[in-house]
Amino acid sequence: MERTTYCGLVTEEYTGQEIVLKGWVQKRRDLGGLIFIDLRDREGIVQIVFNPDFSTEALAVAETLRSEYVIEVRGKVTARDESAVNPKIKTGKIEVQVSEVMIINKSETPPFQIESEVDIAEEIRLKYRYLDLRRESLANTFKVRHQVTRAVRNYLDESGFYEVETPVLTKSTPEGARDYLVPSRVHEGEFYALPQSPQIFKQLLMIGGFDKYYQIVKCFRDEDLRADRQPEFTQIDIEMSFVDQEDVIRMNEGMMARIMKEVKGIDVKLPFPRMTYEEAMRDYGIDKPDTRFDMKLKTLNELASMMDFKVFKDAVDNGGSVKALVVKESAEKYSRKDIDALQEYAKVYGAKGLAWVKVTEEGLNGPIAKFFDEGVTAELLNETEAAAGDLVLFVADKTSVVNAALANLRNKLGKELGLIAEDQFNFVWVTDWPLFEYDEEAGRYFAAHHPFTAPKAEHMDQLLTDKDAVQANAYDIVLNGFELGGGSIRIHDQDVQAQMFEALGFSKEEAYEQFGFLMDAFKYGAPPHGGIALGLDRMVMLLAGKSNLRDVIAFPKTASATCLVTDAPGPVDTAQLDELNLALKATKA
Amino acid sequence: MERTTYCGLVTEEYTGQEIVLKGWVQKRRDLGGLIFIDLRDREGIVQIVFNPDFSTEALAVAETLRSEYVIEVRGKVTARDESAVNPKIKTGKIEVQVSEVMIINKSETPPFQIESEVDIAEEIRLKYRYLDLRRESLANTFKVRHQVTRAVRNYLDESGFYEVETPVLTKSTPEGARDYLVPSRVHEGEFYALPQSPQIFKQLLMIGGFDKYYQIVKCFRDEDLRADRQPEFTQIDIEMSFVDQEDVIRMNEGMMARIMKEVKGIDVKLPFPRMTYEEAMRDYGIDKPDTRFDMKLKTLNELASMMDFKVFKDAVDNGGSVKALVVKESAEKYSRKDIDALQEYAKVYGAKGLAWVKVTEEGLNGPIAKFFDEGVTAELLNETEAAAGDLVLFVADKTSVVNAALANLRNKLGKELGLIAEDQFNFVWVTDWPLFEYDEEAGRYFAAHHPFTAPKAEHMDQLLTDKDAVQANAYDIVLNGFELGGGSIRIHDQDVQAQMFEALGFSKEEAYEQFGFLMDAFKYGAPPHGGIALGLDRMVMLLAGKSNLRDVIAFPKTASATCLVTDAPGPVDTAQLDELNLALKATKA
Repeated sequence: MERTTYCGLVTEEYTGQEIVLKGWVQKRRDLGGLIFIDLRDREGIVQIVFNPDFSTEALAVAETLRSEYVIEVRGKVTARDESAVNPKIKTGKIEVQVSEVMIINKSETPPFQIESEVDIAEEIRLKYRYLDLRRESLANTFKVRHQVTRAVRNYLDESGFYEVETPVLTKSTPEGARDYLVPSRVHEGEFYALPQSPQIFKQLLMIGGFDKYYQIVKCFRDEDLRADRQPEFTQIDIEMSFVDQEDVIRMNEGMMARIMKEVKGIDVKLPFPRMTYEEAMRDYGIDKPDTRFDMKLKTLNELASMMDFKVFKDAVDNGGSVKALVVKESAEKYSRKDIDALQEYAKVYGAKGLAWVKVTEEGLNGPIAKFFDEGVTAELLNETEAAAGDLVLFVADKTSVVNAALANLRNKLGKELGLIAEDQFNFVWVTDWPLFEYDEEAGRYFAAHHPFTAPKAEHMDQLLTDKDAVQANAYDIVLNGFELGGGSIRIHDQDVQAQMFEALGFSKEEAYEQFGFLMDAFKYGAPPHGGIALGLDRMVMLLAGKSNLRDVIAFPKTASATCLVTDAPGPVDTAQLDELNLALKATKA
Repeated sequence: MERTTYCGLVTEEYTGQEIVLKGWVQKRRDLGGLIFIDLRDREGIVQIVFNPDFSTEALAVAETLRSEYVIEVRGKVTARDESAVNPKIKTGKIEVQVSEVMIINKSETPPFQIESEVDIAEEIRLKYRYLDLRRESLANTFKVRHQVTRAVRNYLDESGFYEVETPVLTKSTPEGARDYLVPSRVHEGEFYALPQSPQIFKQLLMIGGFDKYYQIVKCFRDEDLRADRQPEFTQIDIEMSFVDQEDVIRMNEGMMARIMKEVKGIDVKLPFPRMTYEEAMRDYGIDKPDTRFDMKLKTLNELASMMDFKVFKDAVDNGGSVKALVVKESAEKYSRKDIDALQEYAKVYGAKGLAWVKVTEEGLNGPIAKFFDEGVTAELLNETEAAAGDLVLFVADKTSVVNAALANLRNKLGKELGLIAEDQFNFVWVTDWPLFEYDEEAGRYFAAHHPFTAPKAEHMDQLLTDKDAVQANAYDIVLNGFELGGGSIRIHDQDVQAQMFEALGFSKEEAYEQFGFLMDAFKYGAPPHGGIALGLDRMVMLLAGKSNLRDVIAFPKTASATCLVTDAPGPVDTAQLDELNLALKATKA
């Protein structure tokens, strides 16, 4: 029998037609001499009916059917009785009267029911990933993933980009996260590394004249697992020649609009809003602000200096900040106990405490209200736009602590108070990033993005003298509080690149040893170029409405590595081990 | 200045327009007070002219321009004088009169000229790969590669396939080529392996109900390098549920037709011709026949037994074969010395000698002609359809040697004699492969494809008793004598899979230890499924008219590993080494 359509696609348009379906038995109900089966495939579920009036043979087979049996059926599509219509599913208005059935494969009782929402430990679901993947809610994620990559490819193809593959077996790069290493047996004592990004290769492609490159590519980081991190992840990687920041941003906005339209049917408004890194940190305390709700952070350093409150004053005097969140119309919602819970939350991010006042028609209430005299109160209300009924939360500390605590508190409150509309997608660009980042532990500056990021032309002369002031032609795209991706205009001038390495503390020899091939390439006519890299896994997670990266990866890794034996590391045999040992010995020699 | 188009796209349609171009200086000619420059970008070359009548400033800049400088120019497109038209290039009818020029980046003198055909050692070209990639003949290859993957994706997308990514960090599989191993630092003493194919994952996706899967995916083999082999290679990987061999073949033919149409503009005739493995070996001596020319092998075992020629007789008596190639109208072309050279070539493939006769109007000529009496001669001409003027070449030996020698000789002669039309693309399916392959060295049978390949239903009862007779539902697609890809219908029944492992000599415990997860998966309703995997690199190589895989990979590996420092293995630092040692020690403990 040749399948004529998918189960999930049999709508009322098929009424009266004879069709052939192949799928899995989701559920069987025996009722008044009839047998009803929910038959499932990739596209969904359809009800099939075994009726002795139609075929006694088929009915006899149906009596043997159990969950997850694979069957094929031939039958006629008929309208359901009005009373039997199920408005919750696409095929709910019809059913299929089966005239012929064949069992293709049997199934033991599965370890869990194949249903969209299952209350089963993730470990079990991952162990039986092939069953987990049959669940509609998970299967849908991979449809979204397919649609996203299709939209990306179509858009970039139409925009003149070439898809080019870069190597997976590459050389270890010194900066960045830990590389996975692969011993080479052909080249004894040497190791490949798996790439954390194709950054250098895509720059070489631009120098090679490819003009516009993209790739949807696996990247690797040998790091511990977290819900939001997988050791192998997929990047939409893009690079363009002869462009400036505006060109890259415009191209990306077009791509995101295409994705949103094709995957979600949403027309997003272009251009996306923008803010500088400085504005993001000032107003949201974080470089990936969730702009689906307002509740901006208010800086109150001046106010603090007017007050006779040591905690605030000290913070400012020590170079830190006092910032506040106004939680609108929430003074009554939050009891002292609730606020204590918020304080505990803030402490996770390093805050020593969480000060607060409630605004009433009569003035401020709360433990620190006494420090606000009339003038300071007026100023507070003026600065924060707080009004009667609002709760105001303060953190005073080092600015980085203040920002971390309030930014996370803000995100928590946004969810808790239902300030975030479902299915709202707020994109925002964060621009003008600092070029350098000072690492207190290491006692030196690192490249905030990577050492190939171009400084702004107007900051070039501060590269060696005032690193904190130097901004980069770098930009991040943020969606609903998640960093979707980031990019920059790259250095294409060998002298600028040399100065950059100097600024990062490399000697000329060190720089050449590590990046000589790129510096050499710059000698032969490198075009200006820039690009962006977007995290595909995270994008799909957000568009599919999931909260765990493991839900958007067909065979994810887990910390226990027991999820799927094919997907976990395992021991190797003696001969392999001997070869590895030889490789290692040769390295040390 | 905003670029308005690519250099290579400025045809006569632009005449009269002002345009802006950005690109590389290919060549400069100073002539009668004017300067002519060939400006190059991804799409090709255009002639730009600096004329003092147009701009003396631009002319002054032009005087400083050298090869591979990156410039941008504004200018007006004008028709060339009739005498100056260059019919060899797309932009040959026009030139651009430059009014403005800016140097974007300078270049040192490149180590070789950027021209389509360069006579430079490959090692140098690979060392400066970013310059090599600027050459039009190489850049075109990557356009073809992009077009191929685009055609594949569009076709499969329209056919209901989902693109799904499978892991790169997987578990080592026992059979097959050598795996690349990746020490896991999170799981001490254990190793990931890089996949040689996503075979098991795609089968799990089918069991997971995905129905139609594809992926264009990197695969890995830790093997020595050859011109036709790279340690990392790209596969078009496809799997479908509820299909038989005909379904997979039909789908693939549609895909290949789409590729040929979109990339080469050729309408291929469907369906493709087919032959069985047995026919291929009989008529071409090889499982990947080049069908662009005839010259089939003729089996002459019966004839040999009629003759009094010990070499032929012995071969047949020892279970071997005597086969012949008829080289049409070539008796006069090939001198005794030429034939000696052919014999040397045949010896490379194990033949002990190459017997031959020339057919004349009067009968046979040559050293072994005396062994052909009138009857045998008549029979030979009848069997081989040889006629006066033809050269007939014989090999008598073990059948595998006869086939290898004559198959390679045939391919050599096909090229040498110009029997192969340029730009001819002959597809052929080779079907009905043996399921097992006997390895004389190991003294046991192996799976000819892989242990998941389904035996033909009618051969099931011979699985344990007559392995040589068992054929598989397996098929290879061959293009112009190259294996493009191969696939099979897979086993989806746990009992059949268990029997297959038994036939391969695995104990139940061994089989379960290595493949238990798949056998477990078969318990829960596995659908019938099958698929194919095609080598993308080789496909692009054939369609782009190249003969070396390194020409279709942006950053290929070379045996010397000196081509590009980013793409070669290198030493690792002490800390990394210590961690690897720890991992190894833990394994041995």
